[in-house]
This record gives sequence, C-alpha cells and structure tokens, in this order.
Amino acid sequence: MEIISKEMEKFERTLIESTESGVPFIENAARYVLEAGGKRIRPALVILSSRLLGYRGKRSLWYATVIELIHTATLLHDDVLDNAKVRRGRPSVNSLFGNEPSVLLGDFFYSKAVEIMGRDGDSELIRIVSRATTEIAKGEILEIIRTGDLGLKEEEYFEIIGKKTAALFSAACEIGAVLAKKGKKERSKLKEFGEKIGFAFQLTDDALDYLSTDLKLGKKVGTDLKEKKVTLPLIHTLKKASKKEREIIGEIFKKDRIGSRDFLKVKDLIERKGGFEYTYKVAKRFVEEGVKSMEGIPKSPYRESLLRLALSIIERKN
Amino acid sequence: MEIISKEMEKFERTLIESTESGVPFIENAARYVLEAGGKRIRPALVILSSRLLGYRGKRSLWYATVIELIHTATLLHDDVLDNAKVRRGRPSVNSLFGNEPSVLLGDFFYSKAVEIMGRDGDSELIRIVSRATTEIAKGEILEIIRTGDLGLKEEEYFEIIGKKTAALFSAACEIGAVLAKKGKKERSKLKEFGEKIGFAFQLTDDALDYLSTDLKLGKKVGTDLKEKKVTLPLIHTLKKASKKEREIIGEIFKKDRIGSRDFLKVKDLIERKGGFEYTYKVAKRFVEEGVKSMEGIPKSPYRESLLRLALSIIERKN
Repeated sequence: MEIISKEMEKFERTLIESTESGVPFIENAARYVLEAGGKRIRPALVILSSRLLGYRGKRSLWYATVIELIHTATLLHDDVLDNAKVRRGRPSVNSLFGNEPSVLLGDFFYSKAVEIMGRDGDSELIRIVSRATTEIAKGEILEIIRTGDLGLKEEEYFEIIGKKTAALFSAACEIGAVLAKKGKKERSKLKEFGEKIGFAFQLTDDALDYLSTDLKLGKKVGTDLKEKKVTLPLIHTLKKASKKEREIIGEIFKKDRIGSRDFLKVKDLIERKGGFEYTYKVAKRFVEEGVKSMEGIPKSPYRESLLRLALSIIERKN
Repeated sequence: MEIISKEMEKFERTLIESTESGVPFIENAARYVLEAGGKRIRPALVILSSRLLGYRGKRSLWYATVIELIHTATLLHDDVLDNAKVRRGRPSVNSLFGNEPSVLLGDFFYSKAVEIMGRDGDSELIRIVSRATTEIAKGEILEIIRTGDLGLKEEEYFEIIGKKTAALFSAACEIGAVLAKKGKKERSKLKEFGEKIGFAFQLTDDALDYLSTDLKLGKKVGTDLKEKKVTLPLIHTLKKASKKEREIIGEIFKKDRIGSRDFLKVKDLIERKGGFEYTYKVAKRFVEEGVKSMEGIPKSPYRESLLRLALSIIERKN
C-alpha cells in the first residue's frame, strides 16, 4: 500500500472528520473505534482501484470513508450480537459503553456514510453501496438462522460469505471503476476481482479463528465454534469424518457452553482431516481467480499493488 | 386520511414488496413486523404533503416506504436495546426470534430504504433523509447517555426529542415539497410543520407512557420510568416538587428494578404536580405552531387533512 500512503493518511483524516457530530460522546467513541486501526483493506481497495483506472480526484477518499464507515458499523453490530469483549486488540465498544451505544453508533456510522454519498450525489454509486449493504444484512441473517446447524452445506456457506463479506469487497473495487468513469468491461473485472478476494479474505478469517492467537488476531480466537458458527474448516471435516467423529462434534454442539477443551478437540480433528489445508486451498484458488480477472488491465504500479494485496490476504496472520 | 386511502393501500403493498429478498426468513419476519400496522403517520405525511403541493406521481409512495422502513428499523433497534417484549400489540421481533435477527432486520430495512432512494436517484432527497437518520442516531445516543440523570434540563430534553422524533417527521413533510418541486418558501413551511407536530407527537408519547394502558398502547406502559428515561412529565414534576418529594424520586431511581408500586407513586406525584397537564399544554402549543406554519399555503382538502392529522396527534390514545 506504499504507493498510496499519502492518500491513506488523508483517508484517515477524512474518516475521523466524518464523525463530527457536536456530540462529544459520539466523537470520543468514534475515535476510539476508528483509531484502533484495523487493516483498512476495503478503503485501500477503493483508492487503488480508482487510481489504477486513472482517477486522481478526491472522491475516492470520500468513498473509502463510506466503505470503512459501513464496515465498522457492521463490526459494532456484530460485537453486540456476539457479545464480543475484544475488537482490534482493544476492549470492544459494547463491553466498554454497553450494547445500546454500540448499536446506535453503528447506525450513526451508516447514516453518515449515506450522508456523504448524498452530498456527492452520484446515484450509481449509491446503488452499488446500498445493494452491498443489503447483501451484508441478508448474509448475516442467513448465517444466524443456520447457527448450530451441522448440516450446513458448502454451497450454503459460500452463499453466506459471498453476501456478508465478498459483496463489500466487490463494491469497493467497483466504485473505483465508476469513479474513473470506465466502461462495463473494466468495471466488471474490478467487481469480480473484489468479490474473489473477498471470498479469500473470509475463508482465511474462518481458518484463523481456529489457528491464530488472541494477541495476533486482536479478537478472541475460537469465537466461531463457541458461537456454533459452522465454517468451511468444520464443514470439510464433517464430510471426511467417521460416524463416530461426527457424533463427537454433534455432542459438543449440543452443549450450552463450548469450552476450551472442546475447542482443542475440534481443532485437532479439523487438523487431522485436512480442514485447514482445504480451506487455504480454496482461498488460494479464489485469489488466483481474482488475479486472473485483472487480465487485460494494463500493467502499472497500482495493478501490482492490488495483486500483492490479493496475495497478502491469505498470508496474513490477523 | 380518507382522501388518500387509495394511496395508503398502494403504499402498504409497496412497503411489503420492498422487503423482497429471496430469504424466506426475512420476508416472513418483515411481514410480521410491517403488517402489525402502526399508525402510518409518517408515510401519510409524505403523501399528503406532496399532494398538497400538487405532486400526483408515484414517487411519493416510494418515499413513504423509505420513511416507514427507516422508522421501523429504529423501532427494531430500540426494542433490542430496551429488551421490549411487545410492540404494536404483538410480541416483539426480538422476543420472538432473538436480538440478532432484530438488529439485522433493522439494518436490512435501512439498507433497503437507501436502495430505493438510489434507484430513484435524487440526491437532494437522499441528503434530507440521511441527515434525518443521523439526527435520530444522535438523539438516541444523547438520550441513552442521560438515562437515569434526574438533572436533565427541559432544553436538553427538547434537543433529544427534536433529533430522535421531530427530525423524521420534518423530513417526511419536506420530501413532499421537494417531490412537488416547490420553492424554498413552501419547503420551509412544510419542514417546519413536520418538525412541530413531531415534537407534539413525542410529547404525547411521553405522557401516554404513564397514562395509557398496555392494551391501548400496544406496548408496555411505564417503560420510560422502568428504563429510567427522564421525560417532560417528570422534568416538570421535579421542578415543582418539594425537597422531600425529589428525594423520594431519587430513591426510586437508585433502585436496580423499578416496580409497579414505584410507577404508581411517581405517576401520582406527576399528576399532583400538573406534569401531564403541562406536557399536553406544551404539545398543544407545538401543534398550534405547526398549524400556523401552514399559513400562506392555499386551502385544499389535503391541507385540511394535514391540519386534522396535526390535531389528532395530541388526541390519540395510542
């Protein structure tokens, strides 16, 4: 991301400024959440995509802000739902201030994002962003109603992560093409690139939820299992497991509270059945497909940077 | 609302259609929430205001839908925050399906509202709506951080309800003027009318929260006190109360759980200090100011209907 380091600095300022509200509590809480950082992959995608296709103006900063505000809003709502205690290496907003401000701060962020788009006044971009946020809500609802369901099929899992994660990655890249006023061909290439690496991102996330450590991840490891969220490592394992092994997992899923001994047991089984390997293999395939969708886009430092970002997604440790 | 009964029927259909998502759970839950009714004051304001100023097209149905979706989204989030069990006379979504779907269904509604606006593509309207939703979030956050604070001043209370309620009423009426492509004068008249009756609406709500019954109200009476929300009836009472009486209220507010005996005690004190009378007096003043702001707008059945709606706001029992 070095080639857009100046833009990323400006983006950080735009992001903080966007939360000005005249309400000190909101501004403090917003700073607290936003200055904790995060990887800023989505805003970087907006900026890199637009630069790649020749756009040089300021609107990419606004839309990078829009996308990051929306992403942070979903995190705030997720953390309330999951009752998460830690996020981005810090106590979560809900654990610090309570659930109410966390839900409402999320609503505030989402409204601010729409305000920024309203000020910019490009209805094509509003359509792209709002369709993505609708998909996110749909994906998260699908996920929640299938929580605890060990019968979740691989294609259903992909539908869920396609909506809850890949849609926003895809929108981030598509926005870049629209800002650069590029034609259908470039737009669909960028859109596809974003979607593919979005899938890779979520797959890696779901593996890291078992494999990382709290410290590296900046949030609690093992949350998915604790919440009975069925993700690809486990889906693959269930497919490869013996009847007996499936029963063991079934027993664990029946418990009211899944403890760390259960976690280690499941993790070990996934390991032995090649569930992590498989998940990374699929993630790698998505990255390759993403890279492939960029064929035909002229080589440039921005293209190079996007491709490197794509590769880094599956190599990340947090 | 009789003169727009056909439009209101069409609005109901548009509203239900807007939640089409391909996800049966969402469509069922959405129908459940939306078909419970509600007073539909806000969508009626959009339609009446636009008709009043000569607009006859379909866009008023879309924006009526936008406003009602946003309003319902805030209810869904509020009910999670308040842990409400009943809404619009039915078990609340959170009590039926859990907190997660309730927060996410709210997010889905809000996204859909923005999608509709994106499809329509009028950035002036997007600005009006998104500013209102930002105000709502700000108002609700202000309310929550002052919960339990018996020192809340009257002007602070008005700031809160101005944002959390009057802003959306105001936006609903302003949209009507924009749809009719009317000038600044009409637009600011309608905007002010909406704002004033929004205040009156919330003031009445806050009185009814003490004075109504569960059955009439369609939700639990006494919620504000139970949640330690300080509203105008109580603010006025504290002003008029003796030191001893203030101490009694202070003791009640220190309790972990405020029961129905405490509720009756506080209600009785408000009664004796004229807190309800005062609240209704202020609400009536807002309605009068709202009616006044319509001066100069030519007389018509739509104007008549809007003025009658304004008066009905303080006469309602639910």
